[in-house]
Amino acid sequence: MNTIMQLLRSHRSIRKFRDKPVDDAVLQAIMRCGQAAATSSNIQATTVIQVRKADTRREIARLAGDQSYVATAGAFLVFCADLNRPRIACEKQGGNFAEGMTEHFIIATVDVALFAQNCVLAAESLGLGICYVGGIRNDPAGVCTLLELPDQVYPVFGLCLGYPAQDPEIKPRLPLAAVFHQDRYPGVDFTPEIRDYDQRLRRYYRTRTGGTKESCWSREVKTLVGRKTRPHMREFLKSRGFSMQ
Amino acid sequence: MNTIMQLLRSHRSIRKFRDKPVDDAVLQAIMRCGQAAATSSNIQATTVIQVRKADTRREIARLAGDQSYVATAGAFLVFCADLNRPRIACEKQGGNFAEGMTEHFIIATVDVALFAQNCVLAAESLGLGICYVGGIRNDPAGVCTLLELPDQVYPVFGLCLGYPAQDPEIKPRLPLAAVFHQDRYPGVDFTPEIRDYDQRLRRYYRTRTGGTKESCWSREVKTLVGRKTRPHMREFLKSRGFSMQ
Repeated sequence: MNTIMQLLRSHRSIRKFRDKPVDDAVLQAIMRCGQAAATSSNIQATTVIQVRKADTRREIARLAGDQSYVATAGAFLVFCADLNRPRIACEKQGGNFAEGMTEHFIIATVDVALFAQNCVLAAESLGLGICYVGGIRNDPAGVCTLLELPDQVYPVFGLCLGYPAQDPEIKPRLPLAAVFHQDRYPGVDFTPEIRDYDQRLRRYYRTRTGGTKESCWSREVKTLVGRKTRPHMREFLKSRGFSMQ
Repeated sequence: MNTIMQLLRSHRSIRKFRDKPVDDAVLQAIMRCGQAAATSSNIQATTVIQVRKADTRREIARLAGDQSYVATAGAFLVFCADLNRPRIACEKQGGNFAEGMTEHFIIATVDVALFAQNCVLAAESLGLGICYVGGIRNDPAGVCTLLELPDQVYPVFGLCLGYPAQDPEIKPRLPLAAVFHQDRYPGVDFTPEIRDYDQRLRRYYRTRTGGTKESCWSREVKTLVGRKTRPHMREFLKSRGFSMQ
């Protein structure tokens, strides 16, 4: 395993940061690494907004579910899927932008994630810690207003970056056998893999919290997919031009 | 700029590969790097299918728009957004899976992209070249049949990996000023940035093709967003349980 693979495998989310900003030059270097990621047909549908204003950061921290580190991390970025810039380019060429296609939504969302993951690895290679913040989708319309996002742009997730003030353990993952298959999806219900992983994760939480957190994977997953999570997303996206045709 | 950032910035798609397979141990090490990526609430919604059967690979190469390297690369993987495994875990805990939520679709799609980008960087760190294959979405139902994907699983993109038999130039990107902003989305139409980039990309294509390819970014983008790209995606997703509620 080389040093890059070691870096990849040592990721954990950081939620406590030293009181030290991230230099502009460092952020720009990180962004250039993001730009170098693959992009579908070179559409480059990612836009990143760095939020500097303290009151905006506090407001986003609140709407993301009181995630205080959104306000206090060395830097906070909002990663947006942007079909507005491609729309403009298309119209400059005399084309008519095909609004609301599901395929374009997928292209833009994947583009953003590839770009962001490159930024994350660049940041981690520089000793920074990061934390993705999906919680901005609690109130995506609020984020649009705060950041003056136009139609055809939606905020996919936030990203905290900063110098770590904690050193958490790496979280165990599902057995590889549950996620990597040959030629076909297995016709099984993953009982042994889920049981094994639930046990490992239960131990991880007990050790990490001194016995106060009692949970496991299937319980966490039930919380996430056993209810209508963020049911506003469909109408929100529709209102911004992503009607999913 | 450290070696990791240099690797990130040196990415280009590889579409010609040496006739040499990628070892199973190497692929497994790459997958473990993928698993280490961040995942929304630890849902781990990524499933990867390695396609080994020669006839299946030829069939996917064909449906992806005659991309022959899908059949000939050292390895070919299909990255799937998988809510089937979370559904099973949820039901094991006595929960009722909330089918068809747009939010869960976004979570799973982003999860897949973060996982894949880690795999890509691990592969590139080992001297492999890669090429994402969005073309599998030309016929996603066909891919589902070939790989026996159950409901709640959709193929997001393919990935070719192999030892490079070409050394293409790095493709220039939009000026950073077009994609990275402070505090708010700029109220501009990006005229200078698009003009500048169109010129740079025109030069890149001329040099690379010996003058035979005459294109630029806004023209390419018009081809992609100036028409109803893959209009079957909505109905396809609906038919697999992704009804976008």
